[in-house]
Amino acid sequence: MSRLLVAGLPLVPKLLVGKVAARYVAGETAAEAFEVIRSLNQEGALATLDILGESVDDRSKARAAAEEYVSLFDAIEEQGLDANVSIKLTLLGLDIDESFCRDNVEEIAVAAARYGNFVRIDMEDHPTQDATFRIYHELQARHGNLGVVLQAYMRRILDDIAALPAEGGNVRLCKGIYLEPREVAWKGFDTVRMNFLAALEKILDGAIYPAVATHDEYLVAAAVRMIDRAGLDRERYEFQMLLGVEETLRRILVRQGHRVRVYVPYGRDWYPYSLRRMRENPQVAGHVMRALFARKGF
Amino acid sequence: MSRLLVAGLPLVPKLLVGKVAARYVAGETAAEAFEVIRSLNQEGALATLDILGESVDDRSKARAAAEEYVSLFDAIEEQGLDANVSIKLTLLGLDIDESFCRDNVEEIAVAAARYGNFVRIDMEDHPTQDATFRIYHELQARHGNLGVVLQAYMRRILDDIAALPAEGGNVRLCKGIYLEPREVAWKGFDTVRMNFLAALEKILDGAIYPAVATHDEYLVAAAVRMIDRAGLDRERYEFQMLLGVEETLRRILVRQGHRVRVYVPYGRDWYPYSLRRMRENPQVAGHVMRALFARKGF
Repeated sequence: MSRLLVAGLPLVPKLLVGKVAARYVAGETAAEAFEVIRSLNQEGALATLDILGESVDDRSKARAAAEEYVSLFDAIEEQGLDANVSIKLTLLGLDIDESFCRDNVEEIAVAAARYGNFVRIDMEDHPTQDATFRIYHELQARHGNLGVVLQAYMRRILDDIAALPAEGGNVRLCKGIYLEPREVAWKGFDTVRMNFLAALEKILDGAIYPAVATHDEYLVAAAVRMIDRAGLDRERYEFQMLLGVEETLRRILVRQGHRVRVYVPYGRDWYPYSLRRMRENPQVAGHVMRALFARKGF
Repeated sequence: MSRLLVAGLPLVPKLLVGKVAARYVAGETAAEAFEVIRSLNQEGALATLDILGESVDDRSKARAAAEEYVSLFDAIEEQGLDANVSIKLTLLGLDIDESFCRDNVEEIAVAAARYGNFVRIDMEDHPTQDATFRIYHELQARHGNLGVVLQAYMRRILDDIAALPAEGGNVRLCKGIYLEPREVAWKGFDTVRMNFLAALEKILDGAIYPAVATHDEYLVAAAVRMIDRAGLDRERYEFQMLLGVEETLRRILVRQGHRVRVYVPYGRDWYPYSLRRMRENPQVAGHVMRALFARKGF
């Protein structure tokens, strides 16, 4: 059972979570994900492709995931899609052995580099954070086509930004979705919003490419303001949103000339990802809970 | 009876307030306060020692307080504690005669200077404010080891910051706890927060040492951001909190390498101080009020 289930939500029947997943997940196969990306590209949006799965404790599963990622770059190129990839280190063996994981990530980065493509290393919960930065810093210094994620609820975020390489940095900034202890993460809606802006400000000061990943319209507006003040060209930043979330805002931003990249997850392991989406969106969670209670005769 | 009781709260039985005081006050004697400071220092926190008492209308009481303060510096030094002191001018005779009060403060500042120690002049309600600044400016110019307090709810705060000495300034910034008329103080939670940040910004612009005194995590996060932008070393600022309030946040900040100073009050005159703590914390006040009503048969 994943850390998430223990820490966060009750066990929710898979059938119900499946209804949620249908909204947030492109499908179980890469072919289905490519269809979604094609339509996003037609709409003017970019994509980042994610293979679902995390907390793998079996080397063969981690190897299979790495090989699947490597194969994606050929397909993206052949089909003429505008997409990069996002990877989770615990899918690629971080819980097994850090150097095994790093080698898997390096294989993916090398495959991406063949097409001038890019690899985003997702951030997971705080026990993985130091290792994630170690792997990012080492491989980015070697290959130059990786990016990292900073979560605005983290108390250490300003130090993490200060430690980023001065050249070629590319950071996705999001609020953060894991349940973290108070020692590690700021709590409170306003505090996290404010820390998001503090982080974005520091990222822009450092001339790092920001990927502003939020569905919070207040933060989008604030980011538009800061990007405008910094005088960034369209190619020097992007917004990011998740598949199935705030599609209206996404289309508005695209139409206004911003680059917007959509996170497109696919695969059979959609349960924990969909649970996090539910927790983030109380309205969705409400629908599911009502359905759950109705079924049980409440 | 103090101004505070008239303006703020009903008369609350001393027994009940005593229960509150036990949480916020170190004890009735200096020896008890030193024990508390020793344990704070071991935790990595600093302290500022306050003798409870205010609105004194008797010269002998004011003289006794001044002499007690003078004696504290020897004890702090002998016991190797990391602590300075905070003084209230109405305890030291401000309501009797301003120059009598100033002489008492000067005696304390001179005693502090013998050990390179520091004296914080607390700010009380607005009728005392002009005299407090006069005494602060005069003695700071002469001795250089005093600091003042600015309250974020005060409409005049930006002018008060502009009037601070350019060199060696040291300001505690807090929201303010007294009940002030609208002409004098901003009202509204967000307005006071915003004015707090405006004041901190101006303090940092002026290269004045800020002591950021708040338990509001939003303001702590915002201060961390502003201090980071200003590039201040650990020795160039501090956070401050009251004894018995937000101990978790205090430990988190200490562990993250910030200096945190705890306000440690002691003495027999704990009633008005504890009433203010009650008013600031509706949860505590609620417990006390329920106990009060229960006793009266409601």
